Amino acid sequence: MDIAVMGYGTVGSGVVEVFTKNHDSIVSKSSQADLQLKYILDLRDFPNDPNSDKFIKDFNIILNDKDVRIVVETMGGLHPAYEYVSALLESGRSVVTSNKELIASKGYDLLKIAEDNNVNFLFEASVGGGVPIIRPITQCLAANEIREIAGILNGTTNFILTMMIEEHMSFEDALKLAQDNGYAEKDPTADIEGHDACRKICILASLCFGKHIYPDEVYTEGITKITLEDVAYAANYNSVIKLLGIAKKMPGGKIAAIVCPCIIKKRSQLANVNDVFNAILVKGDATGDVVFYGKGAGKLPTASAVVADVIDCAKHINRKKIFGWGPSAENYVEDHGLISCAMYIRATSKDKKTALEEAGNIFGKLTVLERSGAPEDEFAFITGVDSENAFREKLSSVKNFTPCSVIRVTDL
Amino acid sequence: MDIAVMGYGTVGSGVVEVFTKNHDSIVSKSSQADLQLKYILDLRDFPNDPNSDKFIKDFNIILNDKDVRIVVETMGGLHPAYEYVSALLESGRSVVTSNKELIASKGYDLLKIAEDNNVNFLFEASVGGGVPIIRPITQCLAANEIREIAGILNGTTNFILTMMIEEHMSFEDALKLAQDNGYAEKDPTADIEGHDACRKICILASLCFGKHIYPDEVYTEGITKITLEDVAYAANYNSVIKLLGIAKKMPGGKIAAIVCPCIIKKRSQLANVNDVFNAILVKGDATGDVVFYGKGAGKLPTASAVVADVIDCAKHINRKKIFGWGPSAENYVEDHGLISCAMYIRATSKDKKTALEEAGNIFGKLTVLERSGAPEDEFAFITGVDSENAFREKLSSVKNFTPCSVIRVTDL
Repeated sequence: MDIAVMGYGTVGSGVVEVFTKNHDSIVSKSSQADLQLKYILDLRDFPNDPNSDKFIKDFNIILNDKDVRIVVETMGGLHPAYEYVSALLESGRSVVTSNKELIASKGYDLLKIAEDNNVNFLFEASVGGGVPIIRPITQCLAANEIREIAGILNGTTNFILTMMIEEHMSFEDALKLAQDNGYAEKDPTADIEGHDACRKICILASLCFGKHIYPDEVYTEGITKITLEDVAYAANYNSVIKLLGIAKKMPGGKIAAIVCPCIIKKRSQLANVNDVFNAILVKGDATGDVVFYGKGAGKLPTASAVVADVIDCAKHINRKKIFGWGPSAENYVEDHGLISCAMYIRATSKDKKTALEEAGNIFGKLTVLERSGAPEDEFAFITGVDSENAFREKLSSVKNFTPCSVIRVTDL
Repeated sequence: MDIAVMGYGTVGSGVVEVFTKNHDSIVSKSSQADLQLKYILDLRDFPNDPNSDKFIKDFNIILNDKDVRIVVETMGGLHPAYEYVSALLESGRSVVTSNKELIASKGYDLLKIAEDNNVNFLFEASVGGGVPIIRPITQCLAANEIREIAGILNGTTNFILTMMIEEHMSFEDALKLAQDNGYAEKDPTADIEGHDACRKICILASLCFGKHIYPDEVYTEGITKITLEDVAYAANYNSVIKLLGIAKKMPGGKIAAIVCPCIIKKRSQLANVNDVFNAILVKGDATGDVVFYGKGAGKLPTASAVVADVIDCAKHINRKKIFGWGPSAENYVEDHGLISCAMYIRATSKDKKTALEEAGNIFGKLTVLERSGAPEDEFAFITGVDSENAFREKLSSVKNFTPCSVIRVTDL
C-alpha cells in the first residue's frame, strides 16, 4: 500500500521523517506490511534530500497511480489544496491533512465527499498539533453531551503572553523574540489577530456540536492591545491573560463562539499553560472537565499526529470511519454578546473617587485592583457578571472616566 | 442490537444512567438504530429501580441470548469477572470493562481470547475514569515511540495530599475527610498503599511498551508516611508531593516502573492537579510531552468512558480493532533501583553542622531546605541525581544523622 505526501514544508518533511524513523512500528500498528512512501509532491527542488527519488511536481501522477491509497496534504492554504483533496477523495483515496484553513473553510464539503465515496478523511493535526483532541472528542467523549469547549489554541500568542507575564517584556519585544525563535512568521497577523485560533475553535465547535461553524461567524479579537499594565493588574487578581477560543451551547441550543484575550484565575488548568504549548478544555455532561495539553505546533509533534492518522487510514482502508459533522444552519451561531461574563476595565480619570462611585453604580459591586507604579489618574477593576451586550451599553453611558482597556474575565 | 450490564454498583448504575439519558445521540453515533439495554445482572434486588424489569441473577441468561452482542462488566474484582468475560469473548461477544484489577492481572489473556474470537475487548474506563487515555495512546500517539508515562492515577490519595498541602491537614484528618466525602473506602488500603495506582500504571505500561507488566513486578509505596513537615519542606523547594505511577524505557530496552510519592516542581503540569482529579503525562519521541487531565473516578465520568467504548463496539461490531499488547517476558521489567533521581531527606541530628558536612561529602552538592517552626535538631535537603541503588548504599553509611523521611524528586 503506497502513500504520497503533498507539500514538503515544515510539517510535510516532518511526516516523512517520522514515517521513516518509526517505520517498523508504524507498519506493525497499521497491519499493512507493504506500507511505503511513494511520492512527495512539491514544486521546489530538494536535490540533496535522502528521498530525492520520490519528488514529483505533477499532481496527476498521484491521482492516476492506483497503488497510492492514502495521501497526506500538508501544503497549507485553500487552493489548490481543496481541489486536490476533493479529487483524491472522489477517486477513492483516503486523505489526511494538517491544514486547519482547509478544514475550517471546507470541512463539511470534504467530509461529505469522503462519506459519499466511502473513504476516510482525517485531520487530527489541524487542531492542537501533537495534542490528541479530534479523536478523543469523537470517540472517548462520545457518551457525553458537550456543553462547552475552550482552549489556548495558538502557540505563538501564548509564547508572547508568557514572555509578557513572566519576563515583563512588552508586546513588541515579545513578538520580536517569537519571530527570532521561529515561533512567529515575518507577517504575524494570522497569529496575533486571532485568525489562527479562530479556525481551530471553528473546527472544534463543528465537531462538538454537530454543524459546521465558519470563521466569519465567530467574533475574533487578537492580543495586540494587551499591555504590561493589564498583565500587572491581572496578577493582582491572582490571574493571567490568555488568548482563548471558546464555544458553548447556549440555552435554546444555539452555539456562541468567540476568540479573545481572557483573564483567567491561576488555579484554572488553562492558566499554567506556558510558552508555545496548547491546552484544550472540554466540559461534558457526564465526564465533567477534561483537559488535553501538549505542543500545539512544531514539525515533529504535528507530523506525529498526521502519521497517526495515516496508520488509522491504513488499518481502516476498506471501512469508512463514522466521523464528522453536518452542514451549517441559519441562525445556528448565537450573538457572542449574549455570553455572560465579568469584565476587567482599566481606565483613567481626573477624579478617581467619583469615577469609582459611578462605576459601582453602573456595574454593581466592583473588585478594585492595584499595581505598583500606577500613575495617579489610573485605576482598574472587575465588574459583576452580565451579558457582554448589557455591559457595552452600560459602558457607553460612563461620564467620569475614560476606559483604556476592556478584557473579558472567564471562570474556566 | 442488545447490550447487558453486569454489576449494578456505582459505575454500572452510572452506565445505565448515561446510556438512558443520552440514548438518542448514542444510537446516532453508534449507527445501530436498535441499540438497547436488555439485561442488568446483579445478585442484589433493586425493586424500585426504573429498570427493574431488566434485572437478572443468572449469568447464563446473557451467555445464551444471541441478541446480546455487547456486554459491560462493572462488577469489579477478579472472580467471577474473569470467568464471565472469558466465556463472553469466547462466545463471540464484545466486552467493555472498567475493571482495572481484571485488566492489570488478566489483560493479556483476555486480549488474546478477544483476538482469537475476532471480537472487541475495550477498557478505556479502567485507567483515569473519564480521562481519555487508552485510545489516545493507541491511536493518536501511534506514530511515536513512547519513552515514559507518568501520572497521578488515584483520586483518593490526590485528594488527601491536596488537603495536606492546601489546608495543612494531617494525613489522618485528610483520610477521614476523604472517607466522609465518599472518596475513600472504609478500608482505604488499596488507595493509600498505592495498589490501585499500581494496577493503572501496569495497564498503561503494558499498552505503551507492548508487553504485559504485572502489579507484583512493580515496586509500590503509598502515602502513609508523608507528613506535614515534608509538605512544608517541599513547598520551600517550590514543589509539591504527589503520588505518581511512573514507567519508562531504560537504556537497553527494559521497562522500569514504580509507584511512590514524589516531589515535583510547581511548574510541572502534574503539580497543579488537585483534589480527586487525575492527570497522565506521556513523553513521545515525536510529540514531546502530552498531558491528559480529568476526573479519574466517580459514577458519571467513569460511566461515560464505558458507554463510549460501547458505542465503539457497536460501530465495529463485525470488525476487530487492532489493539492490545503481548505476553509478559522474563527480565523485561528492570530493577526500579536503577532509575536515576535526586532524593529529598528529612533527618535529625544533635550536630547539624557536622551532619550536613557529612551529607555533602556523601551526596554531593546539597540544596538545604527550610520550614518555619522546625525543631532545633531537624534539617532537610535535596541530594544530587544518582541511581536509587547507589543512593541507598550511600545512605546506609551515614553516621552523623538519622533519616526520618526519604522521598524521590522527579523532574517530570
